[in-house]
Amino acid sequence: MVDTEPLDTWRRTHYTNMITPDLDGAEVIVFGWVQDVRDLGNLVFISLRDRESLVQVTATAKHTEAAVFNRLKSLDRQSTIGIRGIVTKRDEAPRGVELMPQQVKVLGQAIPPLPLDPTGRSPAELDVRLDARILDLRRPELQAIFRVRHEIVNMIREFLSEEGYVEIHTPKIIAAAAEGGASLFPVEYFEKKAYLAQSPELYKEELTSVFEKVYEIGTYFRAEESHTRRHLNEFISVDVEEAFVTVQDVMILQEELLAYMLRNLETRCSAQLETLKVSPPQVKLPIRRCTYSEIISQLQKIGFSIEWGEDLSTPASRRLGELHHNEFYFITEWPTKIRPFYIKPNSEREEICEAFDFMYEWIEITSGGTRIDAKQQLIDRLKEQGLNPVNFGFHLKTYDYGMPPHAGWGMGLDRLVMALLRRENIRDVVLFPRDRFRLEP
Amino acid sequence: MVDTEPLDTWRRTHYTNMITPDLDGAEVIVFGWVQDVRDLGNLVFISLRDRESLVQVTATAKHTEAAVFNRLKSLDRQSTIGIRGIVTKRDEAPRGVELMPQQVKVLGQAIPPLPLDPTGRSPAELDVRLDARILDLRRPELQAIFRVRHEIVNMIREFLSEEGYVEIHTPKIIAAAAEGGASLFPVEYFEKKAYLAQSPELYKEELTSVFEKVYEIGTYFRAEESHTRRHLNEFISVDVEEAFVTVQDVMILQEELLAYMLRNLETRCSAQLETLKVSPPQVKLPIRRCTYSEIISQLQKIGFSIEWGEDLSTPASRRLGELHHNEFYFITEWPTKIRPFYIKPNSEREEICEAFDFMYEWIEITSGGTRIDAKQQLIDRLKEQGLNPVNFGFHLKTYDYGMPPHAGWGMGLDRLVMALLRRENIRDVVLFPRDRFRLEP
Repeated sequence: MVDTEPLDTWRRTHYTNMITPDLDGAEVIVFGWVQDVRDLGNLVFISLRDRESLVQVTATAKHTEAAVFNRLKSLDRQSTIGIRGIVTKRDEAPRGVELMPQQVKVLGQAIPPLPLDPTGRSPAELDVRLDARILDLRRPELQAIFRVRHEIVNMIREFLSEEGYVEIHTPKIIAAAAEGGASLFPVEYFEKKAYLAQSPELYKEELTSVFEKVYEIGTYFRAEESHTRRHLNEFISVDVEEAFVTVQDVMILQEELLAYMLRNLETRCSAQLETLKVSPPQVKLPIRRCTYSEIISQLQKIGFSIEWGEDLSTPASRRLGELHHNEFYFITEWPTKIRPFYIKPNSEREEICEAFDFMYEWIEITSGGTRIDAKQQLIDRLKEQGLNPVNFGFHLKTYDYGMPPHAGWGMGLDRLVMALLRRENIRDVVLFPRDRFRLEP
Repeated sequence: MVDTEPLDTWRRTHYTNMITPDLDGAEVIVFGWVQDVRDLGNLVFISLRDRESLVQVTATAKHTEAAVFNRLKSLDRQSTIGIRGIVTKRDEAPRGVELMPQQVKVLGQAIPPLPLDPTGRSPAELDVRLDARILDLRRPELQAIFRVRHEIVNMIREFLSEEGYVEIHTPKIIAAAAEGGASLFPVEYFEKKAYLAQSPELYKEELTSVFEKVYEIGTYFRAEESHTRRHLNEFISVDVEEAFVTVQDVMILQEELLAYMLRNLETRCSAQLETLKVSPPQVKLPIRRCTYSEIISQLQKIGFSIEWGEDLSTPASRRLGELHHNEFYFITEWPTKIRPFYIKPNSEREEICEAFDFMYEWIEITSGGTRIDAKQQLIDRLKEQGLNPVNFGFHLKTYDYGMPPHAGWGMGLDRLVMALLRRENIRDVVLFPRDRFRLEP
């Protein structure tokens, strides 16, 4: 029976992964997408995909009602269908089971030709994939990546919530170039000019004076023009900030969070890791701390031309990644000059500061440090970096309300997923990436 | 001893709520803010607040070292301090315990006069409160609200994650006025004009064809000029979308989620609810469904002038709130004309559609419905609403890839918190609200 009765009269009884040889003889209803059609004349195999896995639907000219048989024969790949059928144990079928169809319902007709093949058999260029992202995401690898990403985010929240951090939601539209330095996207906010936030930095610092321990997972925006495999202009950041602690404490928090994720990843995402053929990097705590000076020496030793005080360029990071293959590590004690104004300089050696970067190979996952908690020092640092304290009036005012010493970090979620799943391009782990050249879909 | 040794040498041993009479005689270190100073000459009481509660610090000219005694006497309210002292059982003290100080460390000096009194004893105007939001947030009521909000968000994620919804992160910068209708904030995106997303609507619909069940909790933006107690221009939305279901299913999901939250709220947030002197509304499932036509009749019956086909204005909602006092309820079967283009018209009566609003008293918490899953119908509806299908090219294209029937909703998190905690102004439940007149702090 091929029909058009409304969806209400049909309810899914099983996901594909629930259809096992034990169910031999049972009638089930499954919904999904036509991953493949193999038409052998008197025999048609449909590979039906849903969010869980695939099941084989087998129709024969002999046993299947003619209308159903013909409809199945003529199905276009990626169409959305429902099948009512009888589960049949068959050793030769994938997973030892197949579905003998009694009824088919075409719920969403796909229109060939498709711009790419979501079985992944014929690889497509990145731009083709991103233009037809919804099809691209149906590839088993991408489905696995985003299921793991979901678990990673859950684990971060579990861990931080359990440790007493209060989740906050800070504004994404801000009045002034609050963080200074890097470029911001301007927004027309009614009659005013506003900007998109690059981070919750100043808000989360202020909120340590209210909740002491805070975190946020939110979307931020950076108008940098660089077009690389590890930058996007819109990204998700995991931000933590805490009162009465220093850079040492928040580095420990970072490594413990990582260890927690790695401990749980293999059990919670074993199927996805198998699909991706990847085992996440392993760590032993404490994770290695290298000072910035040591990093400069490491680079100089292999003949890379860099002087103390320079920031780590992309080529420098690349070489560093070779020296720290398959390794997470911290870089500490950075030159004060190349870090943001809010990082606290070392009280004995003002030229270095209490900042850290947390790296995986050549990729910076997290940046953080002890923050300045004295108003005058913050004003001085703003001026040193060519920023106007007047633009930071609301923030500076909060230093008159009793500001605790505090420290924290911001971790790039997309980069973390890249590292844990060993992906080479950040676009592989973001549903709809935004870069200078891509605003759609 | 009043000193300036670095924080590293001082570690907090106890939060205020851990200091109980059982600890009589123990030496502890606590950190916090000076909530109050009562100077009685030879006796000084400091009320010290941290994130958990308050503890009384009692210094006497006789027993406290002179330098410490004088420093405590001269403390300004809201300064951040650390106290090392001896826990002392005393029945007359709050909670039967006080701290006899041996050492005080001023970590963050507050500069009087403060713009408002964060003990809440002298109420301040809303604008004064929002200008000095960081102080305002230290009021026990606001601390309680945001701790409850944290739990509400956790419960939403737990529930949806447990039910198999995959968390997604969709772009907040979009190329075209994707949702049409309501006003968008323009963004200068390099050489291009872009907009801030109002919702993840079209992305989440598309993603049902990949993950089947998705959810997102994200920040969205609406350039509406109206300045009311229930609107902000930046807000957090909880979005759910699911393949192979209808409006009936997602209404059940909504009410079950609400029941889950209410069941757990009282146990997880009992202290905060007590501080707020509030008990959340109760519900019995199924929650009442009223059709739009019934709602119009209810309003007409009390003499409110409204005709079938009109949207519910603010005055109409206000009257409706009186009729549905203390009640959550659904409004279903809306006129197609006043709902967004993507809502599916009823197949037998095209003038009504499969949309719902989920209300608490006069406030719309959630909107949702069955979506159109046929490409031509969607194009027709776009045109009917004066929108150009060309601007929806990427979205319409996904209908050629096999689009399942689907339904979903978007719930305003801020409004949900308002309803559950019975707050009258949305600004009470948002850390740093954004409206037409307020971009700072």
